[in-house]
Amino acid sequence: MSSIKNTNIRLTLPVVCFVWQIAMIILFGVFIRYDEESDTHWVETKAHDNITSDIENDFYFRYPSFQDVHVMIFVGFGFLMTFLKRYSFGAVGFNFLIASFGLQWALLMQGWFHSLDPQTGKIFIGVESLINADFCVAGCLIAYGAVLGKVSPVQLLVMTLFGVTLFAVEEYIILNLLHARDAGGSMVIHTFGGYYGLTISWVLYRPNLHQSKRMQGSVYHSDIFAMIGTLFLWMFWPSFNSAITDHGDGQHRAVINTYLCLASTVLTTVAISSFSQKTGKLDMVHIQNSTLAGGVALGTAAEFMISPYGALIVGFLCGIISTMGYIFISKTLKIQDTCGIHNLHAMPGVIGGIVGAITAAAASESVYGKQGLINTFDFTGDFKDRTVLTQGGYQAAGMCVSIVFGVAGGAIVGSILKLPIWGDPADENCFDDEVYWELPDEEEEHQESIPPILEYNNHMIHKRQDL
Amino acid sequence: MSSIKNTNIRLTLPVVCFVWQIAMIILFGVFIRYDEESDTHWVETKAHDNITSDIENDFYFRYPSFQDVHVMIFVGFGFLMTFLKRYSFGAVGFNFLIASFGLQWALLMQGWFHSLDPQTGKIFIGVESLINADFCVAGCLIAYGAVLGKVSPVQLLVMTLFGVTLFAVEEYIILNLLHARDAGGSMVIHTFGGYYGLTISWVLYRPNLHQSKRMQGSVYHSDIFAMIGTLFLWMFWPSFNSAITDHGDGQHRAVINTYLCLASTVLTTVAISSFSQKTGKLDMVHIQNSTLAGGVALGTAAEFMISPYGALIVGFLCGIISTMGYIFISKTLKIQDTCGIHNLHAMPGVIGGIVGAITAAAASESVYGKQGLINTFDFTGDFKDRTVLTQGGYQAAGMCVSIVFGVAGGAIVGSILKLPIWGDPADENCFDDEVYWELPDEEEEHQESIPPILEYNNHMIHKRQDL
Amino acid sequence: MSSIKNTNIRLTLPVVCFVWQIAMIILFGVFIRYDEESDTHWVETKAHDNITSDIENDFYFRYPSFQDVHVMIFVGFGFLMTFLKRYSFGAVGFNFLIASFGLQWALLMQGWFHSLDPQTGKIFIGVESLINADFCVAGCLIAYGAVLGKVSPVQLLVMTLFGVTLFAVEEYIILNLLHARDAGGSMVIHTFGGYYGLTISWVLYRPNLHQSKRMQGSVYHSDIFAMIGTLFLWMFWPSFNSAITDHGDGQHRAVINTYLCLASTVLTTVAISSFSQKTGKLDMVHIQNSTLAGGVALGTAAEFMISPYGALIVGFLCGIISTMGYIFISKTLKIQDTCGIHNLHAMPGVIGGIVGAITAAAASESVYGKQGLINTFDFTGDFKDRTVLTQGGYQAAGMCVSIVFGVAGGAIVGSILKLPIWGDPADENCFDDEVYWELPDEEEEHQESIPPILEYNNHMIHKRQDL
Repeated sequence: MSSIKNTNIRLTLPVVCFVWQIAMIILFGVFIRYDEESDTHWVETKAHDNITSDIENDFYFRYPSFQDVHVMIFVGFGFLMTFLKRYSFGAVGFNFLIASFGLQWALLMQGWFHSLDPQTGKIFIGVESLINADFCVAGCLIAYGAVLGKVSPVQLLVMTLFGVTLFAVEEYIILNLLHARDAGGSMVIHTFGGYYGLTISWVLYRPNLHQSKRMQGSVYHSDIFAMIGTLFLWMFWPSFNSAITDHGDGQHRAVINTYLCLASTVLTTVAISSFSQKTGKLDMVHIQNSTLAGGVALGTAAEFMISPYGALIVGFLCGIISTMGYIFISKTLKIQDTCGIHNLHAMPGVIGGIVGAITAAAASESVYGKQGLINTFDFTGDFKDRTVLTQGGYQAAGMCVSIVFGVAGGAIVGSILKLPIWGDPADENCFDDEVYWELPDEEEEHQESIPPILEYNNHMIHKRQDL
Repeated sequence: MSSIKNTNIRLTLPVVCFVWQIAMIILFGVFIRYDEESDTHWVETKAHDNITSDIENDFYFRYPSFQDVHVMIFVGFGFLMTFLKRYSFGAVGFNFLIASFGLQWALLMQGWFHSLDPQTGKIFIGVESLINADFCVAGCLIAYGAVLGKVSPVQLLVMTLFGVTLFAVEEYIILNLLHARDAGGSMVIHTFGGYYGLTISWVLYRPNLHQSKRMQGSVYHSDIFAMIGTLFLWMFWPSFNSAITDHGDGQHRAVINTYLCLASTVLTTVAISSFSQKTGKLDMVHIQNSTLAGGVALGTAAEFMISPYGALIVGFLCGIISTMGYIFISKTLKIQDTCGIHNLHAMPGVIGGIVGAITAAAASESVYGKQGLINTFDFTGDFKDRTVLTQGGYQAAGMCVSIVFGVAGGAIVGSILKLPIWGDPADENCFDDEVYWELPDEEEEHQESIPPILEYNNHMIHKRQDL
Repeated sequence: MSSIKNTNIRLTLPVVCFVWQIAMIILFGVFIRYDEESDTHWVETKAHDNITSDIENDFYFRYPSFQDVHVMIFVGFGFLMTFLKRYSFGAVGFNFLIASFGLQWALLMQGWFHSLDPQTGKIFIGVESLINADFCVAGCLIAYGAVLGKVSPVQLLVMTLFGVTLFAVEEYIILNLLHARDAGGSMVIHTFGGYYGLTISWVLYRPNLHQSKRMQGSVYHSDIFAMIGTLFLWMFWPSFNSAITDHGDGQHRAVINTYLCLASTVLTTVAISSFSQKTGKLDMVHIQNSTLAGGVALGTAAEFMISPYGALIVGFLCGIISTMGYIFISKTLKIQDTCGIHNLHAMPGVIGGIVGAITAAAASESVYGKQGLINTFDFTGDFKDRTVLTQGGYQAAGMCVSIVFGVAGGAIVGSILKLPIWGDPADENCFDDEVYWELPDEEEEHQESIPPILEYNNHMIHKRQDL
């Protein structure tokens, strides 16, 4: 397959991986240390703090949720993008690569902004830091969805480097300066990640992308693989939205709300999907994606007393809006949004920000209890006099910050990625694993009943074993 | 593909989804509230109950198990049914749909029967309610296995509506009135679900189903997909059987028993499967299904002191019986049981009920300890004078109740589903995703080496992105 | 397909499964009992030990990790081996079989060596025993990787029987006699399992294996299935390395270290993989395997204060070494190592042993704290006067023991497996599921648009349902 563009990344990819990884090692050496709950001195810490049991270690509050989030990042996002007929290696493999880099960089960036100890100049990490790093990476993986199949792995790494950096800054502004609440990241993760990816895709617009039309769309089995991604995201979303909420009732409530909201989303997604087709047939695109919109939209309010029926209503609306997005909006936007992240993350993320602002403004002591209100919105320290109405305003402000960072950041990073040095594929080679992967020779699969012949997949044998 | 039957569900499916989801929202608004451990007033509850740590919140006892159960419901049951060559979308997708509806309806039905607060008229939900809702849904998904490929999604939703309703009633009779123990649901879930599905399938018997023979059976990759379902069910079954047992030793013991029982089942399944073929070749149908029978059969007794070797014996027998069921019984029963739920759920469920009755009747203070016996069988309140022998009798009675509800309920619901208004497929279109799903055009997959031509999958592109 | 060898296992496989499973039941009846935390007498144990809450039951410290490990054993190892184009049934299915047998035998063998109560002559098991049994099985599954596709299931069962036996002995020597630390089993699991499998494969060397070349190598979808295995191993490796470490900071730290180490491995694996190809294309073999090497190599040191950047360095090196192993070493070794376990387990395992020895020898009170040092290395009882330098020496000795057991054990077991009674496949039938599995007839898959004809998959229908 001839290509006008040079997609040779034999130099750039190894160099970027090596140099950045070495930089990570040096920076970790300088800055990152175990926090007191993961340090061997915990035995003294415990005694000092009168903690009677190891089970009080934050590890036991958060590790199960962390593992669920970890599955969402690597299997969830990775497999959700395997729907294309010949880009599954790239979907799962590049997702793996950029997440692995991103989480290291996130620990540093989030550490510098959120938890740098002023006395020692160190960042102390524990299980909550790992969750936050995974969250930060999620923003970049969302953005990957918009450009899936059209960029090189080097571009993806650059996108991730800047994405994590921007994420840490906007997160600092939204959570620390504005003191908005956003436990499941409707604003911080989904809105930012969505607009970041969409803007980059818009900047990288390819007028002749129709040249790779034969590679677009799915095949039967690739749609099933994508459902693995969908289901692990859907099932573990309650863990995502509750992973860093308050111990006890906070985590408990966030799980219940997200569980209900997502169930509701499935029904309205199916309804709209069926109604949009002449004979009521369902479209896998909607089932794979829009069923998740409820989880996105409850990211901010999951820990609030939104009440079970409130969660159902959010899910109800998101299933409708997201599916309609796939049916109508995608056609009109001049953005080549491969996975439809506009409908799955950006729009539901904004809805989530609005839901968060409204429910925060509507919070009351009668519903939350005096102490419950303080705990939920963390009205302590500098913010102890803040009212719920003010809080609602700051929530709304936070949402605007996430959009601004997404669009502005995407515009800048998109321009950088437009430079002709990154080895991205030609228009006719988009959505094709052939460009960046050694592919197995498949000829035989269609000749199974033919007796053994000489042609066989050479490279696999030589690499995997010596025969 | 022409069809004599009208399978257009463009009106019925959206209407059912919308109306039922709106009904859920209204009913949740009226009835469902957070329980005290998921409410912001937990801070006061804690103080009042002298709970010193958030880790005492039931959430931390049950959430990891809940997530495992959740995976079983959506990935386990969903992928187990993907074995058919062209019904994987329906298997995973409709499983997703009916489980999402069913769990909402289950929270209401189970709430009304088990936990309606008489003073406030409200149902208070927490993580244990979510587990129970997932359990209830499991019963309906089992039933789906019997009719897989032969019904419309609207019929499945109707089946689920009635299934959950019947489930909540039989569960109330068995667990509350008879005070039988059934932590992992051998009777309540598997026996009921099995006979419910089998009876429906029997009522809906299609004499000319051979017309879709070309769609029956699996292909190589669909069998691997099904193994994803099998393995996630198998691995997480210890969580299933321990999810709602007593804190501490109860959950601990249920896990050990189920773990051992399932291991034993695998060996006898392989033995019988191999022995049943001329040259000892294994049959994927058996490996996919019968290996799970031990988990079903230990559903009632998992929390009892059945002892490790006792668990192995149960597994040993179930592997044999279930595999023999696939080899011999399926051929003789005049029920078109697509997934063989008779051999995987109904029969092992009945065995589980019997094992539970016998082991309950054989329980003794010398083995359980005085308090241990009371805790395990909950001989408190109205039941504080019950003997283990009586308990054994009530366990057996419970099993009969579950069979009666399954068969009678299935007969009624089957008759309803026979009405010619549900859009079910014609005999020659059974087991074919084509009927209810927009399928990707696969032509190119077999033409990979042919240069780019114009034909391509149109609908995917237009929906997923704008190019 | 004709075969010179007799691969009929209709007698041997069922007999081995039945006899061994019955032996398990008898031995479990004689030896295995619930430990005090899974026994109904826990209510009295609790009172006696002044335990105030059920959450102190070891179950809640370890069950989430156990379930992750369980997924690694059955889905992780199983799917990692599905990469071959026509051996996925064997990969997932035989993995399932031998793990199910192995874990039972491991509970007995490990029990006799590690926890036989001298007074009662019983083995008391709890959740930690289940984890250890899964660990023990992991060693045998690693060995399976070397002989994948070239042995019969009966041979695999024999390999597992002896493998578990040898494992329990070397584990006893390394952990109890030498008092080496090896929480994640770099030495005990990976080095032993690696050399055990490699030696067996070397003994069973097939000079004419090229006759099955057409079956070697992967196809596009089998590589995606293998990525399911890779990712579940990769994501849950932090649970693997922390599952049996000390409560509190021990588990917490092991998770952080493993998480970081694995992330680093991905980047260097990608770098070397890309650099090794002319145009920088990535090779799925490396991504599927070498990305995991960091987890293997941190098995010993995961619980130590190796510090976050130390973990990154280990991962950095392992990604390079393991990938280079696939590129260079596999070609020169005269071992037909199907999955390349030399590069994924044996070599990284040895590195892990060395890293463990060095970091142990370099441990100091200033880093660990006085009590922390004692806790981490368990310098109590007979070992309370041991210095860290001595400990480092014993760690190194432990590694040698694991290699010796692997090689010597593999040589003996390999010789046994060479006997011509086990039904192994002929050279030209290797890597082919056809030999031991009833395969679905696939012809139709390539004739989807052809109208219904008579040919169809007969056996599936008759077994799964009666139509």
